[in-house]
Amino acid sequence: MEAMLQQSRAMCPFLKRTSPTTLRTLSTATRPSTSGGTMSNLQVLARRCPVMSKALAVQSARMSGTKRFTSCAAGVPSIKPYKAPTGHRALHTTGGHPASVTPESYEKNEQVRPTIPRSIRSAHATDAAVRGPRPEAPSSKHFDYNGFYNTELEKKHKDKSYRYFNNINRLAKEFPRAHTASAEERVTVWCSNDYLGMGRNPHVLESMHRTLDTYGAGAGGTRNISGHNQHAVALEDTLAKLHGKESALVFSSCFVANDATLATLGSKMPDCVILSDSLNHASMIQGIRHSGAKKMVFKHNDLQDLEAKLAALPAHVPKIIAFESVYSMCGSIAPIEKICDLADKYGAITFLDEVHAVGMYGPHGAGVAEHLDYDTYASQDTASPQSTEGTVMDRIDIITGTLGKAYGCVGGYIAGSSTLVDTIRSLAPGFIFTTSLPPATMAGADTAIQYQAQQPRDRVLQQLHTRAVKSSLKELDIPVIPNPSHIIPLLVGDAELAKRASDKLLEEHGIYVQAINYPTVPRGEERLRITPTPGHVKPLRDHLVQAVQSVWNDLGIKRASDWKALGGFVGVGVEGAEEANQPIWENSQLNLPTAESLEASIARELSAEATQTAPQLKTGTPVGTRAHSAIGAAPVGVAV
Amino acid sequence: MEAMLQQSRAMCPFLKRTSPTTLRTLSTATRPSTSGGTMSNLQVLARRCPVMSKALAVQSARMSGTKRFTSCAAGVPSIKPYKAPTGHRALHTTGGHPASVTPESYEKNEQVRPTIPRSIRSAHATDAAVRGPRPEAPSSKHFDYNGFYNTELEKKHKDKSYRYFNNINRLAKEFPRAHTASAEERVTVWCSNDYLGMGRNPHVLESMHRTLDTYGAGAGGTRNISGHNQHAVALEDTLAKLHGKESALVFSSCFVANDATLATLGSKMPDCVILSDSLNHASMIQGIRHSGAKKMVFKHNDLQDLEAKLAALPAHVPKIIAFESVYSMCGSIAPIEKICDLADKYGAITFLDEVHAVGMYGPHGAGVAEHLDYDTYASQDTASPQSTEGTVMDRIDIITGTLGKAYGCVGGYIAGSSTLVDTIRSLAPGFIFTTSLPPATMAGADTAIQYQAQQPRDRVLQQLHTRAVKSSLKELDIPVIPNPSHIIPLLVGDAELAKRASDKLLEEHGIYVQAINYPTVPRGEERLRITPTPGHVKPLRDHLVQAVQSVWNDLGIKRASDWKALGGFVGVGVEGAEEANQPIWENSQLNLPTAESLEASIARELSAEATQTAPQLKTGTPVGTRAHSAIGAAPVGVAV
Repeated sequence: MEAMLQQSRAMCPFLKRTSPTTLRTLSTATRPSTSGGTMSNLQVLARRCPVMSKALAVQSARMSGTKRFTSCAAGVPSIKPYKAPTGHRALHTTGGHPASVTPESYEKNEQVRPTIPRSIRSAHATDAAVRGPRPEAPSSKHFDYNGFYNTELEKKHKDKSYRYFNNINRLAKEFPRAHTASAEERVTVWCSNDYLGMGRNPHVLESMHRTLDTYGAGAGGTRNISGHNQHAVALEDTLAKLHGKESALVFSSCFVANDATLATLGSKMPDCVILSDSLNHASMIQGIRHSGAKKMVFKHNDLQDLEAKLAALPAHVPKIIAFESVYSMCGSIAPIEKICDLADKYGAITFLDEVHAVGMYGPHGAGVAEHLDYDTYASQDTASPQSTEGTVMDRIDIITGTLGKAYGCVGGYIAGSSTLVDTIRSLAPGFIFTTSLPPATMAGADTAIQYQAQQPRDRVLQQLHTRAVKSSLKELDIPVIPNPSHIIPLLVGDAELAKRASDKLLEEHGIYVQAINYPTVPRGEERLRITPTPGHVKPLRDHLVQAVQSVWNDLGIKRASDWKALGGFVGVGVEGAEEANQPIWENSQLNLPTAESLEASIARELSAEATQTAPQLKTGTPVGTRAHSAIGAAPVGVAV
Repeated sequence: MEAMLQQSRAMCPFLKRTSPTTLRTLSTATRPSTSGGTMSNLQVLARRCPVMSKALAVQSARMSGTKRFTSCAAGVPSIKPYKAPTGHRALHTTGGHPASVTPESYEKNEQVRPTIPRSIRSAHATDAAVRGPRPEAPSSKHFDYNGFYNTELEKKHKDKSYRYFNNINRLAKEFPRAHTASAEERVTVWCSNDYLGMGRNPHVLESMHRTLDTYGAGAGGTRNISGHNQHAVALEDTLAKLHGKESALVFSSCFVANDATLATLGSKMPDCVILSDSLNHASMIQGIRHSGAKKMVFKHNDLQDLEAKLAALPAHVPKIIAFESVYSMCGSIAPIEKICDLADKYGAITFLDEVHAVGMYGPHGAGVAEHLDYDTYASQDTASPQSTEGTVMDRIDIITGTLGKAYGCVGGYIAGSSTLVDTIRSLAPGFIFTTSLPPATMAGADTAIQYQAQQPRDRVLQQLHTRAVKSSLKELDIPVIPNPSHIIPLLVGDAELAKRASDKLLEEHGIYVQAINYPTVPRGEERLRITPTPGHVKPLRDHLVQAVQSVWNDLGIKRASDWKALGGFVGVGVEGAEEANQPIWENSQLNLPTAESLEASIARELSAEATQTAPQLKTGTPVGTRAHSAIGAAPVGVAV
């Protein structure tokens, strides 16, 4: 056998170049095959071998049905989509779209680990040894693109970071309920970023319907070529006022806004250094990488580390401190004011991502930066507004935010000085060369922002529900990662366990909470991330808490006390972590008398919501005159 | 004076470091100031000088009103938004948003070229010489961010590439008419990329309204976290079928799709080389740059140059040939089939951007690649469909397209093999970490694709109108850059002239055609880019032709014969260029009998459109069962 392998290796250019380890990996790594079974990657490669292909053709004809698609990349017959066995989970989950496999089928495949059928192995061993490869075979010398794709996917499967998408259809009229791939099956969504339910807000929908009828589905062009319109002007005006800045600029998404802005500034400013919080979002990481600027990562929310890094830089070089207000996966909040102090001291500018905070914090929903000067900004609605000069929000140079989370639509933006915004507008390809957001989307987002600027009740209720859920879970020893925000991360600490917990909640309890695994969080810190909304009333909350308790029991997931016994982890079971993470929304801001119970307060807010008249937006204004904007016309209290 | 300057230079750290040329530039480069007048950049810098600031404060108080916004970047008082004088153009145009200037005001400023007021100059000269800068002044040693922004903007103004946005509100019920910033003022849009008017198609709008009501405004999350739904599944299924591929993946835009796909493949495939057409879109250029892969630019549509570059590369390295089907700014069409031949020969994969072609070419609107096998794909609707194996579309590895142009909505996508698409789905941050498109957008786009797959009349009419306009303009010796596509580029050859022609068309004739200047096209090739739609009926076309004639006369813009006399340029006045650029839509495909006049044929198509029943989409299907999809259910003829 050893002699035969030696001989094969000498003759076969593939075997000659391939290490035994790789061969082992190739023969054990499996993928769905045409027959609905599995096939090793080695088999895939063997199909491309001029010697092997004949033997395989016979095998293949026996195994598969009629081929419907043919890939032409290198003449490799492609694999017919694997049909997942119909069943409960198959209805919910999409992996690689037509070629998707359910987790179960994949796990089964992994366990089976099929090897090359005997017939194929022997055919290769003899044929290759006797004849060697045909010289005219072109594919063997070219790059194996399909092999590359398979290897990349295999890696994702191996480290459990391969993503299966859940088919969740959020129902506007039954918020926060959704149906699955089956229209009849209902689940409660507990992990949406439509934090305030603005996606089904009647004012937003009315504004969008109206705009759709008048101005159509799409913008029809880039901002420079027929895609600039009154909706863009109005929305950017609203956003600038919301953040108390001179100017704002809307992008396809905040991913693009962050990427384009950081890439542009970092690449254009000579010798620019970008100081980036270690937990920053992928969009900022990408923008920084694309800028080619020097990047210094400072420890999450660590002012000492940030200052050390700033101090080590020459005074004259441009510096951008890029950070977030609310870190989405752990719910921590940045020390924004102190970062501004450091920026001033070292001549840096501040780039603050308020994506998870806009709509949610501050008297007008402008974000955490506004929230930090709550009374000053709240006074803007009164007869004697205080000056906003020198407030934290005023001190931030660049604020970025989204229209797709608390504002319930889609899109992103930056706000800052006119010159900054005009520079990005003029230089960033990701802004210049892309179709504008549809008029109806911009109108809907504008309405959402203004509604929230006038109406704090949604975010107050959201905070009260958050407090209630956190409190109930903690009573049951469920490990809630402590934080001062609206995010409720439950520590699981294992990728498979987190996925199983998520699946169990969905399948057995009709509760949808996505598992958050690597690379979104570090390995070992896997979690479930719960986001309450104003719509998560007591029966839904009680159901959630009971379901989580049951899943934690069934799967034997570690409790808070277990983590404490282990010395604590990411804040769970850590002495003093709770005290250090008091909610940023204070009792008085939530109109929560200490004497009153939380549930009584929630009931009061809910009944007030039901009776109070919704804010009157100027829906009857003729088109062309800021049709969808009330800011500036009514005393709406957005900071100017 | 020379001695004083010497002394100042010795004392002032700014003057010491700054060259006379820079000083001259700074004092002549101007920007709008608080008073509505202008201010040189030197004045802006002077405001930051501890010596100068006092003198300037007095000056500033005299000049400006109450300051409303304060920038905190480095303690620099920012400039109050310049109020553009109200007038006709001010209603249409936005430059730097609140700080926008009209072209007129900018040009005026340029002519005035104000220098530093005497009071300031003298204050600086004496104070600086006597006392020097205060040591505690922090701003002087830090980077001047605002100065940087101003310099960048100044460059854009200087090279005439600064963009002024026209406020154009396209009216769904009056397509292709729009109102300007004034709701009463109507213009005809002749440069929208809503090529087929699908943005106002009743089926698309109905689908969007219905989805908006049922599923709300936004998706509420990324595809992995609560943002995956039946609309995404259905749309990607439709797109895959449209292009005859196994799989498709939807992105926020095709800018993101191109950027993310090329960046991911180029960075992950070892030693990857990307061969890029010299006229490729900014999104591809950005994706290639971000990939860090080796880039080889081949001459536009030049097979010989492409082959030479491919041949120079080692056989085993992965190679991507990235190109477009229709090049948007000149209307040229790639030799797709021959590029596939080269890809096969050299083991490369093909990445084809069909952004300006989807919806517009082919019997089902799948693009130019489908169009090249027109009869084969048309036969898919008949009882005996021909095999599509080996067709040009089948041979392309990666097709990218947009939902925001001919399909009238917003968003972009890729289509290809399951493994390729799954790899991008699993690895590309620009896909993973961004909010999904809204359900209504995806439903609307799905409806638009299916409508166009069943109904070629819009694109036939679009082609007939294109032929009619091209023909009329050529008769008047207007320099139309010859091409085989639906784009009508009129060569102007000068940035200012192109802008003036565009302005004149808008202001004097109510016709909106954006001028296309550097960097979108090379300097000297500035043009007007006209895009007819099915809605541009004879009276509108006659009006356009007469208006272009009049503007060409008024501004003395070169005629085709002038270019010919100069030896020809970019195809205009070039011998044989017309013949080499026959329309890709043949007479027979347009149902255009040679005996019939073009206008008679158009009239026939228009009247057929008015009487024929619109295709019946399955609007009554219950939610959750492919509510917005007819492909697969009806004989719609999309290639499978």
